[in-house]
Amino acid sequence: MDKKNSVFIATSLDGYIADKNGGVDWLHSIPNPDLDDMGYIAFTNEIDALVMGRSTFETVCGFDVDWPYDKPVFVLSTTLNEIPESHKEKAFLVKGSLTEILAQIYKKGFYRLYIDGGTTIRNFLKADLIDEMVITTIPILLGGGAPLFSELPKAMEFELMGTKTFLNQIVQRHYKRKN
Amino acid sequence: MDKKNSVFIATSLDGYIADKNGGVDWLHSIPNPDLDDMGYIAFTNEIDALVMGRSTFETVCGFDVDWPYDKPVFVLSTTLNEIPESHKEKAFLVKGSLTEILAQIYKKGFYRLYIDGGTTIRNFLKADLIDEMVITTIPILLGGGAPLFSELPKAMEFELMGTKTFLNQIVQRHYKRKN
Repeated sequence: MDKKNSVFIATSLDGYIADKNGGVDWLHSIPNPDLDDMGYIAFTNEIDALVMGRSTFETVCGFDVDWPYDKPVFVLSTTLNEIPESHKEKAFLVKGSLTEILAQIYKKGFYRLYIDGGTTIRNFLKADLIDEMVITTIPILLGGGAPLFSELPKAMEFELMGTKTFLNQIVQRHYKRKN
Repeated sequence: MDKKNSVFIATSLDGYIADKNGGVDWLHSIPNPDLDDMGYIAFTNEIDALVMGRSTFETVCGFDVDWPYDKPVFVLSTTLNEIPESHKEKAFLVKGSLTEILAQIYKKGFYRLYIDGGTTIRNFLKADLIDEMVITTIPILLGGGAPLFSELPKAMEFELMGTKTFLNQIVQRHYKRKN
């Protein structure tokens, strides 16, 4: 089966995924009366599992909503010893290098992975392990916060697969890693 | 006459305008056999003058080509005492705060300004003095270099005016400052 590591994320115009206070209210700065999902459901229909860091996992656990994922979530952590009882059927702790972690996940039969959370995305990019990115840009300059991208050991070319505009204001670009 | 400060610039996917070595070869990583100007001529037809920092001015002076601008270029510098003899009819030194500089330029009859160069753009943005931005994104992660954006005192909303795709790979987004 084809393996694929995908990113699907929203950023500000200046490339932040959270503002200076860690907030994401700005994600909703463009009115979305019909709750357009901007391709999220279609994207998640094509993935087998999620991979995220401990910090993102705990953030999602803390949201005042039901668990939002219907696919297994693999949580990368060096500090967590076990997944809280409440999430034991939904989330699974993985440890090791990214290559080891991927091998463990593939062994369980999950190949198309949604890589999420700032630290995890940046670490996968540093190891050149991201195959595609769907980047949705909100038209705001935050001027600080948590950046999507960070220093990389080398430049990496991508191929534009397409663009879409949502709500007349939000541009989504789809890129594939160029081989 | 309507005053307008515009940015027209190309960046990498991770928001850099020059790579780790200050190079811009990656701007030409997408083959452009018919030398599509990606809207540059149309953009410059609508401006009265350019405003750039000393560093960008000296970089352009150092290019092994004829002087590329047919509009006056105002050079911001705290260190330069005069414009080199070779460029005296083309470039003009301006000093003072950004507001003072703009007042000097308006007095000379130039209202629609092309704000160029990383430091100058970042300083204009910090002072919320940019009215529109045309950002052309090359599909490459550079992983370091000179960033287009920097820390801002406050978040600033923009309005998407439109998007264009060039050479099937390069996405250009046009934003206007939201009032």
